[in-house]
Amino acid sequence: MTQYNQPIGGNDLARFSGPNTFMRLPQASSLEGLDVAVLGVPMDIGTSWRSGTRFGPKQIRSESAMIRPYNMANGSAPFDNLQIADIGDLAINTFSLADSLRIIKDSYDGILAQDVIPMAMGGDHSITLPILRAMAAKHGPVALVHVDAHADVNDEMFGEKETHGTVFRRAYEERLIVPDKTFQIGIRGSGYAASDFTEAQGWGFRQYPAWELWQQNLTEIGSLIRKTVEDHPVYITYDIDSLDPAYAPGTGTPEIAGLTTPQALQLIHALAGMNVVGGDLVEVSPPYDPSGNTALTAANLLFEMLCILPGVTSR
Amino acid sequence: MTQYNQPIGGNDLARFSGPNTFMRLPQASSLEGLDVAVLGVPMDIGTSWRSGTRFGPKQIRSESAMIRPYNMANGSAPFDNLQIADIGDLAINTFSLADSLRIIKDSYDGILAQDVIPMAMGGDHSITLPILRAMAAKHGPVALVHVDAHADVNDEMFGEKETHGTVFRRAYEERLIVPDKTFQIGIRGSGYAASDFTEAQGWGFRQYPAWELWQQNLTEIGSLIRKTVEDHPVYITYDIDSLDPAYAPGTGTPEIAGLTTPQALQLIHALAGMNVVGGDLVEVSPPYDPSGNTALTAANLLFEMLCILPGVTSR
Amino acid sequence: MTQYNQPIGGNDLARFSGPNTFMRLPQASSLEGLDVAVLGVPMDIGTSWRSGTRFGPKQIRSESAMIRPYNMANGSAPFDNLQIADIGDLAINTFSLADSLRIIKDSYDGILAQDVIPMAMGGDHSITLPILRAMAAKHGPVALVHVDAHADVNDEMFGEKETHGTVFRRAYEERLIVPDKTFQIGIRGSGYAASDFTEAQGWGFRQYPAWELWQQNLTEIGSLIRKTVEDHPVYITYDIDSLDPAYAPGTGTPEIAGLTTPQALQLIHALAGMNVVGGDLVEVSPPYDPSGNTALTAANLLFEMLCILPGVTSR
Amino acid sequence: MTQYNQPIGGNDLARFSGPNTFMRLPQASSLEGLDVAVLGVPMDIGTSWRSGTRFGPKQIRSESAMIRPYNMANGSAPFDNLQIADIGDLAINTFSLADSLRIIKDSYDGILAQDVIPMAMGGDHSITLPILRAMAAKHGPVALVHVDAHADVNDEMFGEKETHGTVFRRAYEERLIVPDKTFQIGIRGSGYAASDFTEAQGWGFRQYPAWELWQQNLTEIGSLIRKTVEDHPVYITYDIDSLDPAYAPGTGTPEIAGLTTPQALQLIHALAGMNVVGGDLVEVSPPYDPSGNTALTAANLLFEMLCILPGVTSR
Amino acid sequence: MTQYNQPIGGNDLARFSGPNTFMRLPQASSLEGLDVAVLGVPMDIGTSWRSGTRFGPKQIRSESAMIRPYNMANGSAPFDNLQIADIGDLAINTFSLADSLRIIKDSYDGILAQDVIPMAMGGDHSITLPILRAMAAKHGPVALVHVDAHADVNDEMFGEKETHGTVFRRAYEERLIVPDKTFQIGIRGSGYAASDFTEAQGWGFRQYPAWELWQQNLTEIGSLIRKTVEDHPVYITYDIDSLDPAYAPGTGTPEIAGLTTPQALQLIHALAGMNVVGGDLVEVSPPYDPSGNTALTAANLLFEMLCILPGVTSR
Amino acid sequence: MTQYNQPIGGNDLARFSGPNTFMRLPQASSLEGLDVAVLGVPMDIGTSWRSGTRFGPKQIRSESAMIRPYNMANGSAPFDNLQIADIGDLAINTFSLADSLRIIKDSYDGILAQDVIPMAMGGDHSITLPILRAMAAKHGPVALVHVDAHADVNDEMFGEKETHGTVFRRAYEERLIVPDKTFQIGIRGSGYAASDFTEAQGWGFRQYPAWELWQQNLTEIGSLIRKTVEDHPVYITYDIDSLDPAYAPGTGTPEIAGLTTPQALQLIHALAGMNVVGGDLVEVSPPYDPSGNTALTAANLLFEMLCILPGVTSR
Repeated sequence: MTQYNQPIGGNDLARFSGPNTFMRLPQASSLEGLDVAVLGVPMDIGTSWRSGTRFGPKQIRSESAMIRPYNMANGSAPFDNLQIADIGDLAINTFSLADSLRIIKDSYDGILAQDVIPMAMGGDHSITLPILRAMAAKHGPVALVHVDAHADVNDEMFGEKETHGTVFRRAYEERLIVPDKTFQIGIRGSGYAASDFTEAQGWGFRQYPAWELWQQNLTEIGSLIRKTVEDHPVYITYDIDSLDPAYAPGTGTPEIAGLTTPQALQLIHALAGMNVVGGDLVEVSPPYDPSGNTALTAANLLFEMLCILPGVTSR
Repeated sequence: MTQYNQPIGGNDLARFSGPNTFMRLPQASSLEGLDVAVLGVPMDIGTSWRSGTRFGPKQIRSESAMIRPYNMANGSAPFDNLQIADIGDLAINTFSLADSLRIIKDSYDGILAQDVIPMAMGGDHSITLPILRAMAAKHGPVALVHVDAHADVNDEMFGEKETHGTVFRRAYEERLIVPDKTFQIGIRGSGYAASDFTEAQGWGFRQYPAWELWQQNLTEIGSLIRKTVEDHPVYITYDIDSLDPAYAPGTGTPEIAGLTTPQALQLIHALAGMNVVGGDLVEVSPPYDPSGNTALTAANLLFEMLCILPGVTSR
Repeated sequence: MTQYNQPIGGNDLARFSGPNTFMRLPQASSLEGLDVAVLGVPMDIGTSWRSGTRFGPKQIRSESAMIRPYNMANGSAPFDNLQIADIGDLAINTFSLADSLRIIKDSYDGILAQDVIPMAMGGDHSITLPILRAMAAKHGPVALVHVDAHADVNDEMFGEKETHGTVFRRAYEERLIVPDKTFQIGIRGSGYAASDFTEAQGWGFRQYPAWELWQQNLTEIGSLIRKTVEDHPVYITYDIDSLDPAYAPGTGTPEIAGLTTPQALQLIHALAGMNVVGGDLVEVSPPYDPSGNTALTAANLLFEMLCILPGVTSR
Repeated sequence: MTQYNQPIGGNDLARFSGPNTFMRLPQASSLEGLDVAVLGVPMDIGTSWRSGTRFGPKQIRSESAMIRPYNMANGSAPFDNLQIADIGDLAINTFSLADSLRIIKDSYDGILAQDVIPMAMGGDHSITLPILRAMAAKHGPVALVHVDAHADVNDEMFGEKETHGTVFRRAYEERLIVPDKTFQIGIRGSGYAASDFTEAQGWGFRQYPAWELWQQNLTEIGSLIRKTVEDHPVYITYDIDSLDPAYAPGTGTPEIAGLTTPQALQLIHALAGMNVVGGDLVEVSPPYDPSGNTALTAANLLFEMLCILPGVTSR
Repeated sequence: MTQYNQPIGGNDLARFSGPNTFMRLPQASSLEGLDVAVLGVPMDIGTSWRSGTRFGPKQIRSESAMIRPYNMANGSAPFDNLQIADIGDLAINTFSLADSLRIIKDSYDGILAQDVIPMAMGGDHSITLPILRAMAAKHGPVALVHVDAHADVNDEMFGEKETHGTVFRRAYEERLIVPDKTFQIGIRGSGYAASDFTEAQGWGFRQYPAWELWQQNLTEIGSLIRKTVEDHPVYITYDIDSLDPAYAPGTGTPEIAGLTTPQALQLIHALAGMNVVGGDLVEVSPPYDPSGNTALTAANLLFEMLCILPGVTSR
Repeated sequence: MTQYNQPIGGNDLARFSGPNTFMRLPQASSLEGLDVAVLGVPMDIGTSWRSGTRFGPKQIRSESAMIRPYNMANGSAPFDNLQIADIGDLAINTFSLADSLRIIKDSYDGILAQDVIPMAMGGDHSITLPILRAMAAKHGPVALVHVDAHADVNDEMFGEKETHGTVFRRAYEERLIVPDKTFQIGIRGSGYAASDFTEAQGWGFRQYPAWELWQQNLTEIGSLIRKTVEDHPVYITYDIDSLDPAYAPGTGTPEIAGLTTPQALQLIHALAGMNVVGGDLVEVSPPYDPSGNTALTAANLLFEMLCILPGVTSR
């Protein structure tokens, strides 16, 4: 009978002790037998404003020591019947964005070949492009839940086609995602023209700008997404800057008037039951997060995503 | 005729001057003639994650210099007809949790013997157990308004029965509180099993998890509590981590997706008219509060609690 | 044909480069040909609690480099048909409040003589008194939208008649504003008596305390203001402490339980179409804003105010 | 027999408790019977770069709780036979530099009339001008030990004659000090011309630029000063920015390559035996001192100055 | 042939990745085959002023990722012929100082039974008492190199005999150390009487107060210690507060005018060749170390201590 | 007659106002007529540990507002007879290290073609390789004064030949520098083998490890360099991490036990009279420099380098 990995309990070892793995789960050196792999992609060379996300995985792991294995809000217990481990960080090349994106793609091909669900801690958002390439290679074009302050559909930045601001145009062009099963939630701020958002609507993307969500319960949107996507494989990419800077100051390109953490949880809770094939949480920049609370929030959102993976039950 | 203590006015002495007492009230060396004693319990050895609450009382007092004596929202003027002073800190033993809890109990017995209402600044939440012991010794089991991210009903932590996470199980077992007049508001986060919360419901505790309160006005819950408790002596224990970390980052065990400060004020305002016999505000950890705004929030919540004490009138 | 100034684009020069002007607009050494002048008033000697606002303009400019020229929420494009430049800081006398207020008045007389709309970055709120004097000299008594935690209607502070807490009593007495077209939004906290607020109501001021606005959409209030003021010249003075300290910690006299940034945007959006003759954003104190997010918020609110100036069109 | 005031001991009450007086000494409401008065002058409106020194006295007092009453290095025990108390802050007018300087002069006249030695915690350095006026009125022109990064001998700043940068030119002109018994130690940095320093040498000031002191033991200079001044009344004004920013980052106008704290102690120790009639420690700016160590250093330097007051004995 | 553990190289995996072990060494779950065990003792309940050292081991490990395996200054290469691993943290009881000290003693007995040299990361200094008990049980009374701002020879604190301030009196009384082979280096600051230091001199302790060391090269003292102790087993306990707060701000009881890091390295280098049987580095308090540089310093000092262990060779 | 650019004076405009250029010099849009160009290279993608140096130029400029035009220590007045301006930042490609290095080389070719001396603010140290390429193309191999904690002579990092750790091996291989006129000062820390340093000695590099410099006056080394290089064109590259982290915490790869700022000034002062053809100050990382004092130090070191350029006179 499978012995499922469990986080170290807070009464077994003081929370400030133990391995610096996600939730103090065991560190796995092999993918053998895993259902889910939590991993880090410590990179910040794809970012255009404040850097620092290279320390994101380390800090998210550190703050995740506070999280216990059972979700009081919805009764989910992901460690009851999924084998989950932290497999460490991808060995990216910190001096080359292009090379790092290649490494990510190759690493994900390996993970997906083992039918393991990867849950990544960024790193800047540029990591999601090679991830989606691997996802599409495995599953065909995927549905996408993209929670973010920015649509990230630029054509280029400084002449570069692959940065943290061009990910979803590339994903659309390369048919990595299903356009009318692509949802962009929380986008806002300033831009250059209406087409910054509307062009993607023309491709089929469904957009929920933050200003339509202020003071709202996001459960309904979550339900709508679930019904629209049905059983199609879905990838969730969560940019921490979707949250208001009051809730998540530690990020590279903050935009005011964003979502709240209650809204984030309402949304994720409502996605339970979908065919989630992977997810990421990106853009946590510890140098701008002295309290550690942005990383704590990121750790919790990752845990909430674990709680809605296929096979997780409630008790 | 009684001369009531007044805070030093901001035009009499610059706010950054004056004694470091709560709201720059007079410091009392005796309980004689007091209706209310504000005091500090500077302790952090009952905490399980981040320490630092030993500096809580000092920092709350420091930030309280901003507060003026009249409550614009509801017209309360607590210094009009209550004699309130800051009596300083309890001389706890910073090396022994057990000894400190004993000192707190003894000190509170002394305060209550003089019919003075104690309003404490913590310190970690373990201080509330000896306080409730003294309260029950004086008043019998009290009603309890417990605002917190955590239910604090563990049976033990590292084999210890008296820590900041076991307070309300002990209080229940020792019959210090009336279970069906006990309200836990704002609880949330992760745990080990549904019973982490539901067991206390079985004892009679009434729980209002944060996720039921998101985006809600808390006035109604406050009214319900007031009607349920009626004239029974009630103690209010306010853990600053009931608030979302966006509002109160400076605390030891933050949990995301908590209450807002408007909700905190709605709740306290609605409790006006109850037979409040004491209160505390705990878990402010200044090392994690570089802006001082968590302490400022704590100071304001204490002031709001003063504003609903029996005998306070509006003008 | 007029060549309108444009902010430097994020793809033309990395956002962390370029001049430290507002939104990286051109710096103008003359008012010639300008429709709007953005300027700084770097002063903190009118403040009563925490200082530091002398660095406000510098920090707001620094964070404004993130903002792009088009408003995604309402399609406004202020740089399409208004000539806007940053004219630098007023050369105030940092050792004398009285002399500085005189300098501000004289400088504003010069700006208004050229029919340029001034949009100021404070500095503490005492700057708004000489500004209103210049405004009234030009336009007669103006309508006033005053968003703030404090009513700022003290008669004096430490015997001084002109400080950051007495501005709007002076403005009323000197008939610089139209009392029944004066709106105070977000006021709250503690005071000395009900008359702290109600006296101004007696003058005709319309007050919207924060506690009436919690959890509300402010669009309706904005619409009401617009309808009440009609085409009368209106000045907007925005104190960053109107926002909750969770959203804007970096300020001198924070008050808990304030407005949210979504509410701030709802309000400003709803004011579009008014005859705005000037505006300011005050009380950003960088030493208390280590993340820079208060300044970022201030920069965005200034941009939002630019977006509703007369002549701005949507696309 | 006189009962001399003693600081509260660290084993009597935890260091993070107790009154926020200097070293937790008793707060005196009268000068009666005092030999020495420690006091605060919480002002920052005389400063030209970073503000924040208004919070200096509060923070210095807070950090002084660490200091015990006996000086291990030289055996001094100032509380053995001097009656020392903290008399709180002067009630300066935070909106007017001129008025505040007048208040300081008047207050010092009162203190000196009682033959009490005043030891002030600033505040910016502008406070020393009215202090020296009072000193000279009492004692005639005094000898001066001035430890600072700046000579503070400007003629004016923004047309103002009395600011933190003009103090010692005014003192010279007004014959408040004895020029050839005036020592400026630690001066350095950039200026406008050689005369910035040499003009004062022409008046008789003896200058010890920092670059002559690097890596040196300052005992010898201290001895030289003591021998030169002999029994003449001497005032010590200690600007915390005399120290290198590595040792004292929390100040308004830091200059690199300054003194070390060992050098500061060597200097003060060597001054023992002089006829010190007063002293101050200025320019501690808490918003720039997040660790509190600048204030801790200031508190220690004040204690060291207490240790060399006339009448202090060693044991 | 033994394969010696090596730290992960900075070119094999980016320094911000990898296990959070000391220098990214392998984590050992058994003591089998180890020569040296690096371990954490994450405790802060023995401290009297600022807490936070419970996070010391985690932060020291995190910053140690910068250190490479070869000591450029003296050619030491500790990983060439010693088997060194990180064995994690001791599972102390965070609610009970007494119980934690017992756990430490028992754990150390186990380590020493395997002839493994333990190098501990604190934690507050109270951990050194049970360590010395285990050391003496194994080796008999040990020689002691004690680098610290404080002598830590109080008899009690708040009536407690075992705290971070009483360690070396207890060690003396219990004959855990050889008095005339005990060296206290860097002690300074304020106290209660000369006997605070001199009593221990009477026991035989050799004291080097900081004021005798200022601006000095410490090589000579190191040599003297080495010659005095000869081959006697020696324990090194390094309190980070021996350093000046400019070099190590992140500690609980900082004292100004301390040692420099060059002096620290001169001292340790000079101790090479002694019969070191264990060591610790204590009192790093991360909440007071926002830059991480105190932890970085601590990590380097630990590495330097590894470099002088018996059996380490130079190349 | 040439009108030389002057920094804006602190009495003409408050130091917290004015353009964010170096020392508030005029910003030049052309190189025409310039003797010296101060410029920024805002890059951090060549760094291996902490990022953030992309904000270095902005922060150095901001803190440079404190510096006045005359050097009190040596009487240098660089603005008396050199035309110096700030020419802004190079428009590097923030997503590609290789492309950015190419842009730097091309930009420097253009600057040197005009016989302008470039003084750069980094950015990480990788910028110095293309700078040296341009220098050698203009002047032939240059003498090099390299002040740094690290020798930066790795062959590669993660397979990359051009990073902040390989600069001076490349420079040697490409004959950009004269090996026996190359001085490495302040190197220290840990490495992989003695050859990390000694190999470069074999090429002819002259190395002054920090441990030989501790507590020393660096004037003599400066003199020796000046005499050795004679009139050969010399480039000065100053890595802020040469300083001890106590003096310069805000950098990416800090190493303990480094130089002091007095030593830095002694060294630069002693280099006066050399044929300096350019210089840079690199590795200031503002996210790790909350006090701003690292940037202040960098600004001062740049000013000191301006003070020793050919043609500068003393008065």
